Order: sequence, then C-alpha cells, then structure tokens
Amino acid sequence: MAEAVSWLSVKLALIGYGNVGRALVPMLRQNSAGFPFTVTGIHTLHHGTAIDRAGLTERPEFGPRAESVEAFLNAAGADIAVELTTLNPSTGEPAIGHIRAAFDRGMHVVTANKGPIAHAYAGLRDRACQAGLVFRFESAVMDGAPVFNLWENALPGLKVLGFTGALNSTSKVVIETMESGGTFESGVAAARSMGITEGDGAFDVEGWDSAAKTAALANVLMNAQTTPQQVSTRGIGKLTPGRVQEIARQGKTVRLISRARRTSSGITLRVRAEVIDKADILAAVPGTGNLILFHTDLMGTFGTISIEPLVQQTAYGVFSDLVNVARLVS
Amino acid sequence: MAEAVSWLSVKLALIGYGNVGRALVPMLRQNSAGFPFTVTGIHTLHHGTAIDRAGLTERPEFGPRAESVEAFLNAAGADIAVELTTLNPSTGEPAIGHIRAAFDRGMHVVTANKGPIAHAYAGLRDRACQAGLVFRFESAVMDGAPVFNLWENALPGLKVLGFTGALNSTSKVVIETMESGGTFESGVAAARSMGITEGDGAFDVEGWDSAAKTAALANVLMNAQTTPQQVSTRGIGKLTPGRVQEIARQGKTVRLISRARRTSSGITLRVRAEVIDKADILAAVPGTGNLILFHTDLMGTFGTISIEPLVQQTAYGVFSDLVNVARLVS
Repeated sequence: MAEAVSWLSVKLALIGYGNVGRALVPMLRQNSAGFPFTVTGIHTLHHGTAIDRAGLTERPEFGPRAESVEAFLNAAGADIAVELTTLNPSTGEPAIGHIRAAFDRGMHVVTANKGPIAHAYAGLRDRACQAGLVFRFESAVMDGAPVFNLWENALPGLKVLGFTGALNSTSKVVIETMESGGTFESGVAAARSMGITEGDGAFDVEGWDSAAKTAALANVLMNAQTTPQQVSTRGIGKLTPGRVQEIARQGKTVRLISRARRTSSGITLRVRAEVIDKADILAAVPGTGNLILFHTDLMGTFGTISIEPLVQQTAYGVFSDLVNVARLVS
Repeated sequence: MAEAVSWLSVKLALIGYGNVGRALVPMLRQNSAGFPFTVTGIHTLHHGTAIDRAGLTERPEFGPRAESVEAFLNAAGADIAVELTTLNPSTGEPAIGHIRAAFDRGMHVVTANKGPIAHAYAGLRDRACQAGLVFRFESAVMDGAPVFNLWENALPGLKVLGFTGALNSTSKVVIETMESGGTFESGVAAARSMGITEGDGAFDVEGWDSAAKTAALANVLMNAQTTPQQVSTRGIGKLTPGRVQEIARQGKTVRLISRARRTSSGITLRVRAEVIDKADILAAVPGTGNLILFHTDLMGTFGTISIEPLVQQTAYGVFSDLVNVARLVS
C-alpha cells in the first residue's frame, strides 16, 4: 500500500549474494523512491567482498574477500545485516554466527535462512531484545508469503494452539512423478531441474526440510525452544511408484505434512508422509506451492497459501522485513 | 503475540448488538488485562440503549432507545464507534450514515459490515483521513481471517494486480447438497440451518453477496471506487441437480468465483459460477471456509484461507481492528 516515507536512507550489509541477494538488489533499486535503502557492502565466499559506504552501484566490483564476516561488518558500517548465506541445515551455521556478530556490532538483522530460526531462535531473539535490536526472518518459511510478519503485525492477542502445514515442494514433485508412472529418482531429478531442491534431495524427501520449518514455526509462534532434531520425523523415502499408484486409485495421494499441537504435557511436533484425499486442502495446493493452517484460541483455524513461489518471493520477504525494521528504528 | 500495553483504557460505543456484538463483549472482557477497552454504550433497534461512561457491566441494562444514532454517540462519549448493525446490502445503509455520524463527532470507526466498504469506501476513507481518524473493517470479508489488516500492516510496497476468491459459503452448500441428490431449495435450507444465510438465500445464490465482497476488496486493495452493482455478476440460480451431478461425474464441481484484474483499460470485476476441478484449490476449501488469492507485482500469487468460520471469528476481526486503532491513536 502507498505510504509516506518516514525514514532516511537505511544502510544494508549483505552476507551472501546468491539467487536471493541478486533478486533483492534490483527490487531495492526499483522501490527506492518509497523505501530508501542503500547497500554499503556485499560479502561472498567465492566472489570476494565489495564495500562502499556511500552506496554500491548496481554492478558492484568485488575486491579480495574480507578476512572474516566480523571484519566485513566492521568495514560496511551498515544499520542492518542481511544474512543470505548458503546454510548447513543440520546446525544452522554459519548463519547463526553471522547473526550474533551483527548483534554484537549493534546492527539489526534480517535473514532468509530457516536454520537460525530452527536451531537457535530463542537465544537470538533474547539477544536482539536486550540490545534493542530488531530481528526479522519472513522468508525462512514459505518463501516470503506472509507468515511471521502476519503474526508480528496483524493478529494481536491471538494464541497459536498448533499448526498443520504442507511445507515441502520436493516431496510433492516426487510423489506426483510416481503417480504419473515415473521413478522416485526421476521425481527428485525433476524437482532439481525446477530449482527447488539441491544435491540428492535426501534432505527434502527424508523430511528434514519439513522438520526444520516445523521447528522454526514452533519456536517463533509457540515459543517451543526446540530444534529440527527434536521433531519426530519420517519422510517419503520408503514410498514406491506401485504404492503411490495404489493410493491414487483410491482417490487419495500422499503429502509430507508438518503438525504441531500444544498439549497439557507440552508441544508435540511431527513430520509424516500422510495419505490424504486428493481434494483435501492439504493436497490441493497447486504446483510447488505450500500451505500452512494455524489453529488458534480466538480465531479458530485459518491459513496462508503460496502459489508457485520463486526466488522473487523470497527476496520480497526480505524486502518486507527490511521495511519493518526501518519503520521500527527510525 | 504477547506485548506490552501501550494505551490507557479506550472507550467503545457499539451500534448494533446481534451475534457479533454478543461474541465481542466477552472477548474484550477476557483480554482486558492485555488490551484495556471499556464499553461505554450499546445502541440497539429492538432492546433499547444502554450507556455508562464509566463502563457497562457484563449484562447491561437497556433503557429506552436513544432517539437517534447521533444522540447515542453524543451520550456515549466513546473513542471508537463499533458499527455492527444489520445491513441493507444493496445500499450499505444505515451503516454508512452511522459511520459518517461517528466521524463527525471525532470518533474512530471499526465495522464488521461489508456494505460501507463495498458502496462508499473512498469517501469514508478520505473523510477519516482528513479528520485524522482511523477506519478499520477486517471482518467485512472472510469473517476476521487476515485480509485487510494483512495488507495494511504486513505487505509494504506490494501492489495488488488482481485477486481470485471463493467467498460465498451458501452457494457452496447448495451445490454440495445437489451433488448429494438434494434439491436447490433443500441446499438453501441447509445453509440457513447452519446460520450462514438469511431469508430465502437469494442474495447469496444470485451472487450479490460475492459482488459486495468483490467490490469491497477492489475498493480497498485496488482503489477501484466501485459498487456491487458495477460488478458483472451471475449466480448459481440456474443450476439444477441434474447438471451438477453431470459435472460431478467428470470429476468437477461448481463454485461461485470472484475475479478482479487490473487491465490497461481499468479494473475488471466479475462474479461467475465456474466449473472447476474437484481438486482445484478454489474447490478444496473444506466446509463453509473461504479462500482468496492475491495476484501481486513483487510477490506473485499467495492467499488467505479460512476454515469453518463462526461468529467468533468475525468478533476477533473486530477485536483486532480495535487493537490496531488503539495502537495508532495512543
């Protein structure tokens, strides 16, 4: 929505410059009249480091890599560190360390990485809070579709009792490939060619991507203080084309479903390959889209759906986080 | 989410006290520690008027009806007028007049009525803006599920290019009844017994409820400055059980779908009974739930889904509006 600009130029330091960073920078430029951000530094593992405190040009020249992320942040002199590195999803590093380094330097942080939220959210949230800094992460789950900022900004007084999500696209592509007569492996290859999975796809099909998203959502929305390893997780690895087609003949399909529930004994979190009706809302999200349903105290169940998300959506999630931070701190 | 209270008690005057008002008042009471609102007046057509500037009790005693809404607002001395009257959907009155009367008295306004948003939004928005007043209406579409406050608070810099919605529950119940062998009329009766439709159901099945929601969404999200009468509308009135069952045998169903598009010649708005696949996301929303998909410039397509909304959800939408207003003005 249109609005009056209420802040002077806010300076950004980008840690990592892959697909999301390369989609974000032109988005910042196109919206600079309404939202005046300046990129003062970009730090990459392979292309080196670029710094200009007056603002980098559209095609920054990368010099030698700064000796550390800490040295980079010191040199960039930014207001907000934007964490977009490639992640080790089983630990959340190196992103967690980068975020701590930024907080140590009095910088706000925006990240598109789910790892820090899945593995170390409570500590990072408390550290930011104590230092009077803002920490946002809309794109950590569902690629920029409104999830975390929806809860932060639009649902006062509402308590999350649980959630149900179809949050993994690769497993869906694999299942649909097998329904059409393909093999498990050709399904993984199809997902890789669509750019939605990396490597051998094991992280997705074994459920760890879903477990990380489940932990991230539970940490933020339910204060679960959990990790992906604590989510009870079974993937689709044992599914065969024969079994999938047998299920399809009954008008059903399989989806990797994340479920969280608040019970009297605590919060239960699990990821399972569930057999559901083809017309079930959890199955009906088209293409590579995702769905999350929130179960709440005052508002029953409602949710957010994403349709064919691309890297542009992830970049928009980061952009919306940046605007949120800029509004809060200026 | 938990938050520090940042305002002193904000005073509310309720115009209308039907199902939504009766669900709202206990919700205000249960959340009064975190969100301190005081109801200083309730004005009804049939039960009279209750006023206590120190705060009405849980079971207010109604005296004679104030001679006008204006007189009621003068007496209640509230900060926010909460418009919850029964609506004439073809004109938006009397709600529009009530809202203007509140603005004239320097009161902010929250309404759950779609009529004023569908028929007179731009004028009311401008009037509120000129007077430095806040005007919110989350529950006008989709019963309190995040739509208008999502856009107001969580999606900076994003432009709506169009939307697609399955926004009418009565027509869905009628279609599903006919799919199961019932008549059109028994479907309307079923919807009426579920409390989701009133009277003979014509307003729903002929598409006018969807047209009003379409106009309201387009007015707020696309600045369409339109009315329900300007939405090209055809309902499900000509559908027969035989035709519906013939469609079902092809794995398809019918839904009353709202579509908005921004084109080079302006904004096109239409409501149609569309034949869609049973597993289409527009068909897959369970029960009386609704779905809206937003088509945007920077974020592609994403949406909000509601599952089995009840009057409690509508009341929560009003509650979230009240908190939004209280935050903005205190």
